[in-house]
Amino acid sequence: MAPVVNRLAIIGQGLIGSSITRAVVANRAAREVVVTDVSPKVRKTVAELGLGIAKVVESSADAVRDADLVVACVPVGQYGELAKEIGPHLKPGAIVSDVGSVKGAVVRDMLPHLPKSAHLVPAHPLAGTEHSGPEAGLADLFENRWCIVTPLEGAQESAVETVRAFWKALGSEVEIMPVRHHDEALAITSHLPHLIAFAIFHTGLKHEEVTQAEVMKYSAGGFRDFTRIASSNPTMWRDIFLNNKEAVLTVLKQFNEDLSALAKAIEENDGPKLVDALSKSRLTRRKVIEKEHISVTAPKREHEDAFPIVRPYGDD
Amino acid sequence: MAPVVNRLAIIGQGLIGSSITRAVVANRAAREVVVTDVSPKVRKTVAELGLGIAKVVESSADAVRDADLVVACVPVGQYGELAKEIGPHLKPGAIVSDVGSVKGAVVRDMLPHLPKSAHLVPAHPLAGTEHSGPEAGLADLFENRWCIVTPLEGAQESAVETVRAFWKALGSEVEIMPVRHHDEALAITSHLPHLIAFAIFHTGLKHEEVTQAEVMKYSAGGFRDFTRIASSNPTMWRDIFLNNKEAVLTVLKQFNEDLSALAKAIEENDGPKLVDALSKSRLTRRKVIEKEHISVTAPKREHEDAFPIVRPYGDD
Repeated sequence: MAPVVNRLAIIGQGLIGSSITRAVVANRAAREVVVTDVSPKVRKTVAELGLGIAKVVESSADAVRDADLVVACVPVGQYGELAKEIGPHLKPGAIVSDVGSVKGAVVRDMLPHLPKSAHLVPAHPLAGTEHSGPEAGLADLFENRWCIVTPLEGAQESAVETVRAFWKALGSEVEIMPVRHHDEALAITSHLPHLIAFAIFHTGLKHEEVTQAEVMKYSAGGFRDFTRIASSNPTMWRDIFLNNKEAVLTVLKQFNEDLSALAKAIEENDGPKLVDALSKSRLTRRKVIEKEHISVTAPKREHEDAFPIVRPYGDD
Repeated sequence: MAPVVNRLAIIGQGLIGSSITRAVVANRAAREVVVTDVSPKVRKTVAELGLGIAKVVESSADAVRDADLVVACVPVGQYGELAKEIGPHLKPGAIVSDVGSVKGAVVRDMLPHLPKSAHLVPAHPLAGTEHSGPEAGLADLFENRWCIVTPLEGAQESAVETVRAFWKALGSEVEIMPVRHHDEALAITSHLPHLIAFAIFHTGLKHEEVTQAEVMKYSAGGFRDFTRIASSNPTMWRDIFLNNKEAVLTVLKQFNEDLSALAKAIEENDGPKLVDALSKSRLTRRKVIEKEHISVTAPKREHEDAFPIVRPYGDD
């Protein structure tokens, strides 16, 4: 397969940035690759890792010079600063993309600092591991995973096509949707579940009668399913919650209503209502599983098994 | 190892009852085993499965006659009726135990119908799979799992010891605690997580802008962790919620406060407060994992892998 771009710049070499570098090299997705990171230590590590054709430079301004495609891989709260730094150094017609978990805020922060001749095409690869840093990068991290591309209104078609082809070259399945729709979809499928998991952890830890040791011991009963996602990076999640505030608070309100309805049925001993409500989840999960077979499945990897999952127990 | 009891009766041959039968036979935990089930179809299946020394009889009254230990394995809402049926047929000094996920309600329902000469020693094995029915039983289901035994005040020591030895013989680690403490511990470690998982499923499914297909597609971002436990048996969970109502509503109230505090920090853009709150979960999960190594770990089994677990994704 011919390289998708001539000169590619990857800003940031954490887990995602480093995985992109590895994947680009492995799949020959670009002719030239220039990478950088704000941290001298990370740059040194990347240089020592020896990532094939990828060249490490000292600054973002240096990295983007003459780049046809710039993929920025920094925390959600830092895209504004980065855009300010690289804006004046972009070549005319350069495509700028990102990997942020929130798209509205990234567009809001970057767009004002980019020259009119540049094309901003935001993207969000739905992939990751619990580890971070350049050593944790994996060349196959994006294989068979979704990557959501969110073009702005009136975006140049060929720029969107380049970003789509780039992610396809890395093994991802690409979906195209508006910025706002992405943020709403992720609010329900990812941000709300994380917020809830963080909250239930607090509840479990400050119980008056039941000790923390007991909560841990008997966590196989359901609590444990929440602990995995509640252990995610705190500053990353602060940025996500604050930058997708509106959508997160909207789905949270809906969740509170749904939870209240279940609580009311329990309070009022309304058995039929409870069975009706609880059955819906089971039926839909079946659909989810069936759906899995026809959609992109995420192959299980060695590193995904840090915390074994146990079945719930019951008495039926 | 010498059998723990001479004559054992197991009432109910669903997943748990059938697994106990298999485990007792495999571990020679009783000299004689008599089993039964209300369903003629289930009795027929059990007889056809040919469970070694276990003898299938037609009624609970027949099963408990001359039994030294009776282990009742019926849904949480049916222990009262069962006690009424078997009470008059128990031999003097018989030990009666159960496997219910809620202990207070089982004691409340059974005790009035048992003769004074019988010893009620409630128990709750923390084990199970998503499957149900006698065919789904597994001889090793209880190996390296917790079994919580909740003796009543003034219980006969030798009766408690028999129940403990019985579960040890099946491979479980036994914990002894008061009935009320069990119900509070399970409310936080199991019942609340299930209630929340059921609720978020409703939220995900009725979103106005984001389709069900999209929720399923992108569920690897966190939503999927909730789907496994939200697919549990609806009538079983109705019984659990209604029979542990007080403890469940108490922890739910605490959870609502914890979730509101996080929501308030987001609303007020309070970054430092969010990082502080989100960090606690991560630190404690580390403790949970370390704890895993010194406590009873649940070995992963083939059948526990029906729905693959995927890491969350992020941008750090």
